[in-house]
Amino acid sequence: MSATPPPTHIDASPDPDPDAHLREHTLTSQTVYQGNFLAMRRDEVRLPTGQTASREYVVHPGAVMVVAILPDGRLVMERQYRYPVRQTMIEFPAGKLDAGEGGLACARRELWEETGYKAERWARAGVMHPVIGYATEVIEIWFAEGLSLHERHLDEGEFLDVFAATQQELEDAVRDGQLTDVKTIVGLMWLQKWREGAWPLTWQTEGA
Amino acid sequence: MSATPPPTHIDASPDPDPDAHLREHTLTSQTVYQGNFLAMRRDEVRLPTGQTASREYVVHPGAVMVVAILPDGRLVMERQYRYPVRQTMIEFPAGKLDAGEGGLACARRELWEETGYKAERWARAGVMHPVIGYATEVIEIWFAEGLSLHERHLDEGEFLDVFAATQQELEDAVRDGQLTDVKTIVGLMWLQKWREGAWPLTWQTEGA
Repeated sequence: MSATPPPTHIDASPDPDPDAHLREHTLTSQTVYQGNFLAMRRDEVRLPTGQTASREYVVHPGAVMVVAILPDGRLVMERQYRYPVRQTMIEFPAGKLDAGEGGLACARRELWEETGYKAERWARAGVMHPVIGYATEVIEIWFAEGLSLHERHLDEGEFLDVFAATQQELEDAVRDGQLTDVKTIVGLMWLQKWREGAWPLTWQTEGA
Repeated sequence: MSATPPPTHIDASPDPDPDAHLREHTLTSQTVYQGNFLAMRRDEVRLPTGQTASREYVVHPGAVMVVAILPDGRLVMERQYRYPVRQTMIEFPAGKLDAGEGGLACARRELWEETGYKAERWARAGVMHPVIGYATEVIEIWFAEGLSLHERHLDEGEFLDVFAATQQELEDAVRDGQLTDVKTIVGLMWLQKWREGAWPLTWQTEGA
C-alpha cells in the first residue's frame, strides 16, 4: 500500500456499504470448549480477499455496569479480588445478564445484590465493548440516582468491599495507576462529560 | 451483612494487607483449551472463607495501544472489522506483544506495521486491564508524536483502514455510540487529561 495521507473524517464515504472491504463472513461455527462459566467458539470465516481463516472467541451473555451517585455526589464503588489479573481492583458495580434479563433489571439487581443500594432514577448512557479481539461481550452503562441503602445479598463465593469515592479521587487513582479497570474508566469519562453538560442523559423514574 | 454506610476513602485502612479478606489462592492450574490464538486455563482456588472454587480465564500475552498525534493535532485511527462483535470498530492502533518484546518496541512495531507511521517521541501513560473477569490481558498505553509516514506492512490476513480524526470528533463518536471500544475510550480520556495539563506525560526521544 502506498503511503498516502489518511482521510479526514470518521466516515467520509458516500458508499452505502463502506465496510464491505473489511468484513468477514461466517462459514462454519463450533463450540470448542464448554466450561462452567465460559464457552469458546471457533469459526471459519471468509476474509475480504476470499481466503479463509479461523476466529476463536469467548461467548459472553452481556453485562451491565452502574455509575451510582450518592446524595453527596460521591460514587458507590467496589474493591474485589480479580483472579485472572491477581489483583484487587477498584470498580463500579457490574455483573452479567441472567438469561432473558433486560439491562435495567440487571442493573437494578446487581446494584442491590452487591452494594445494598436501590435507586429512584435510572439513565442508560450507552454500551461499550471491552474485548473486541476475542469475546462477544457488550456492557451497558447505567447511571443511578436517588439511592437508599438496604441489605446486600452477595452471590455464593462472591467477596467484595463497598466504599464511596469522589470523581476527583477516582480520576487521580487512574492517573496514578491504582485504577486500571477499563469499564470503570469509561464510566468515569461518561460521568465527567455528563457533569460538564457535554453528554446528556435521559432519566427514568423507578416505578413510573 | 448489615447496611452500614460505606467508608470514605479508596484505601483508608492502616492494615498492612487490607485485601487479605478478598484474596484467592491458587491450588491447582491446568490448560483446558489450547487454540491457535487463545489458551484457556482453569484453576482451583481457595476462597477467603477457606472453601474452594474454580476460575476459568484466557491467557493473553499482553498488548499495547498507541495514541499517535499528527502535527495538526489529529489522531491516527483505524477502522477494523472485529469478528467476535460482528462490527467494524473505530480504534487506536494496538497489538499483542511478541514473545520477549518490550512495550515500546511493540508500540513502535504495531504503529508502523498497521499505519505506516514512525514517531520521534514516545511517552508511556500507564496500563489498563480490559477483561478482569476472565482474561489476564494488560494493555500498555503509549503516546507518540513527531510522526512521519512510511509504507505500512499489514500481517497476513489483517485488513484495516487508517484515517485521522480530531479529539472532538472522537469524543462525539463515543457520545453517539459510534465508538464503543473500551481501550480507545480510555486513550481518549488520557489524551483529554494530558491536553488539559492534569495527567502529565514523560517523553523520550527515539534513538536518544
